[in-house]
Amino acid sequence: MPQSFWNERLSHGAEAITSSVIRDLLKLTEQPDIISFAGGLPAPECFPTEELTAAAEQVLIEQPLAALQYGPTEGYQPLREFLAAHMAGIGITVQPAQIVITSGSQQGLDLLGKLFLDSHAPVAVEEPTYLGALQAWRPYRPRFLTIPLDNQGLDIDRLTRLLETGERPNFLYLVSCFQNPTGVTLAQDRRQALIELAAHYRLPIIEDDPYGELYYDGGRTQPLAAIDIALHGELRHVIYISTFSKLLAPGLRVGWLTAPAAIVEKLVHAKQGLDLHTGSLAQAIAYSACRDGLLERHIPMIRATYGQRRDAMCDALATHMPPGVTWTHPGGGMFIWVNLPSHLDATALLCASLEYRVAFVPGASFFANGGGAHTLRLNFSHASPECIVEGVTRIGRMLHAEL
Amino acid sequence: MPQSFWNERLSHGAEAITSSVIRDLLKLTEQPDIISFAGGLPAPECFPTEELTAAAEQVLIEQPLAALQYGPTEGYQPLREFLAAHMAGIGITVQPAQIVITSGSQQGLDLLGKLFLDSHAPVAVEEPTYLGALQAWRPYRPRFLTIPLDNQGLDIDRLTRLLETGERPNFLYLVSCFQNPTGVTLAQDRRQALIELAAHYRLPIIEDDPYGELYYDGGRTQPLAAIDIALHGELRHVIYISTFSKLLAPGLRVGWLTAPAAIVEKLVHAKQGLDLHTGSLAQAIAYSACRDGLLERHIPMIRATYGQRRDAMCDALATHMPPGVTWTHPGGGMFIWVNLPSHLDATALLCASLEYRVAFVPGASFFANGGGAHTLRLNFSHASPECIVEGVTRIGRMLHAEL
Repeated sequence: MPQSFWNERLSHGAEAITSSVIRDLLKLTEQPDIISFAGGLPAPECFPTEELTAAAEQVLIEQPLAALQYGPTEGYQPLREFLAAHMAGIGITVQPAQIVITSGSQQGLDLLGKLFLDSHAPVAVEEPTYLGALQAWRPYRPRFLTIPLDNQGLDIDRLTRLLETGERPNFLYLVSCFQNPTGVTLAQDRRQALIELAAHYRLPIIEDDPYGELYYDGGRTQPLAAIDIALHGELRHVIYISTFSKLLAPGLRVGWLTAPAAIVEKLVHAKQGLDLHTGSLAQAIAYSACRDGLLERHIPMIRATYGQRRDAMCDALATHMPPGVTWTHPGGGMFIWVNLPSHLDATALLCASLEYRVAFVPGASFFANGGGAHTLRLNFSHASPECIVEGVTRIGRMLHAEL
Repeated sequence: MPQSFWNERLSHGAEAITSSVIRDLLKLTEQPDIISFAGGLPAPECFPTEELTAAAEQVLIEQPLAALQYGPTEGYQPLREFLAAHMAGIGITVQPAQIVITSGSQQGLDLLGKLFLDSHAPVAVEEPTYLGALQAWRPYRPRFLTIPLDNQGLDIDRLTRLLETGERPNFLYLVSCFQNPTGVTLAQDRRQALIELAAHYRLPIIEDDPYGELYYDGGRTQPLAAIDIALHGELRHVIYISTFSKLLAPGLRVGWLTAPAAIVEKLVHAKQGLDLHTGSLAQAIAYSACRDGLLERHIPMIRATYGQRRDAMCDALATHMPPGVTWTHPGGGMFIWVNLPSHLDATALLCASLEYRVAFVPGASFFANGGGAHTLRLNFSHASPECIVEGVTRIGRMLHAEL
């Protein structure tokens, strides 16, 4: 009886949340002697621990009420003001009132699902797309329309053809810079074309941009939200999502949404039902750490560290991958995407790779409607360059044995 | 166009999230010269600020990884173990694996809505019930079945008659001790009867218990979850929700669910889509502060402070309320519930009371299916005894003028 008693009453949404074989497999990769490229973890040696400790002391001593009491659902006002100024620096000129603080950007995704997705509602996503978005939205049971990517990002022609058929997605979701999982960035000309398309077809866009500051070659790519503002004089077609998780530390769980003014109140009311508000202490720490310019001092160090690791992984892949294997060459972010010969199955290879004490995420999880069995994702931000070389060498040995 | 562009695409759930007149009215009560009994805020002078500051320093210096990196969705393992031991002290003997840490108990409510509520699904709630539960669940568009309360808590006979009609709620939700909004506590004999009813009808119960430790007269009431375990040898019919918000500080946003083993995995998978996990730093601080016995030292001080305020409010009500007004006499918690003569409308009186510079929450918001226009909720935990006396005096003057 206990098994069925509660499980008998599960909602349709809950039934759409399925236990994942990958999840169980990845638990096996947490053993200490395994070199794991599977997670999406920032390097802990890049956490500004001293600055965050000083910020925690400061807010708890000087402003215990702001840090410990209930706070407004929309977020800690000084942090919203800081973020408005911060985003103006990348062309996203909005009012602080257009910013809603979220409990990590993952909560932003759930919130947007709650606001815009119904059972069978069409939603356009990249193929492959961020796994966390699929996890957030599957309980709302939308109909995923997948748009392929190439090395320049989302295939705008394919999106155009979809819209020309009369399909009207409730929104298009994309990770615009150094995409998770592929590492590709939407090219500038496609960004312009996408905003024009959004205006023409009244297509809402969710731009997820956790990695935009983590560039290792060129400079900052102009966000879609900034292009929208430049073209229309206000943020109109884009909700922009970002987070402190990759810039300060994910354990704070502080992210934010920037939205067209017309939809902010609805976002705030919906968030109130989710968790009343994001942690006051974490918000106050993020604000206190950032207001004196921590991001400007700290992010260059992250770029240098991750850039070196990206190079180590690209070089090791060039040395150790067998013929027929290709991979992306991301200009930033945390991930490289590998295409294996099409007869190989990355999930089966993950089992094999555990014998070589190395791990990755099979790519199929990132495909909303199936496919991608011969792909995999490698993270390069967490392991040291030496471990990266050793791990890629092991994957190379494993693939040579399997081919 | 901007207004309609996003709002045209709102989900059915989002349409069920309505802007509240009360919310706007209550914004007016935030002016500094208004004595507000409207919020549900703990007294900030009861926050263990020094201990939390020491805990923050300790975890950031000694365990920065646990405080700052991504953590497991189910929660920080030492905190889960602490909570399992803590709850064993009130008869809820469970494994740490049955505990899921949530971002405040509000997230627990949203999570349970996601798992168990569909459009038109029946869900039984107290009348009146906790407003935050209604806010969490309205987007799932269930059918609320309301069960009245009296001074002994939920009317078990009415629930029995409902079940006898063949109605099978997906769950029954109740705040079992010092209920929000009424302050009443479910009597011991009704608790026993409710668990027997749950077993007979296979009725899942959500027991929300944020105030159980805050008793000012007697002792700790036995939770429904403890009775379930005592009768059935395991937690079977109850998911028990609680939080550190009233014991340490709400700004941490750390709560927890305790659930029958069969449903824990589903809870964890669903939570992963909501926010990946609750803030690592906040969880580590809560654990570090509590492991050396902070709760045992600290809670008696909260009880003494709030007990004095409860007395001040009850005495002032007895002195200043006009005939025909009645109110509850809670043995703990944070709220007193006032019944006005039935021709009065508390929402209209709130406007009048702003002229007297005093505020409360009109009771109608706590009724899932309407009603309760002549009721209101008073909070006694936040204001000082002197302010409580002055505020109740003003309400008395206002009511005498209106009657």
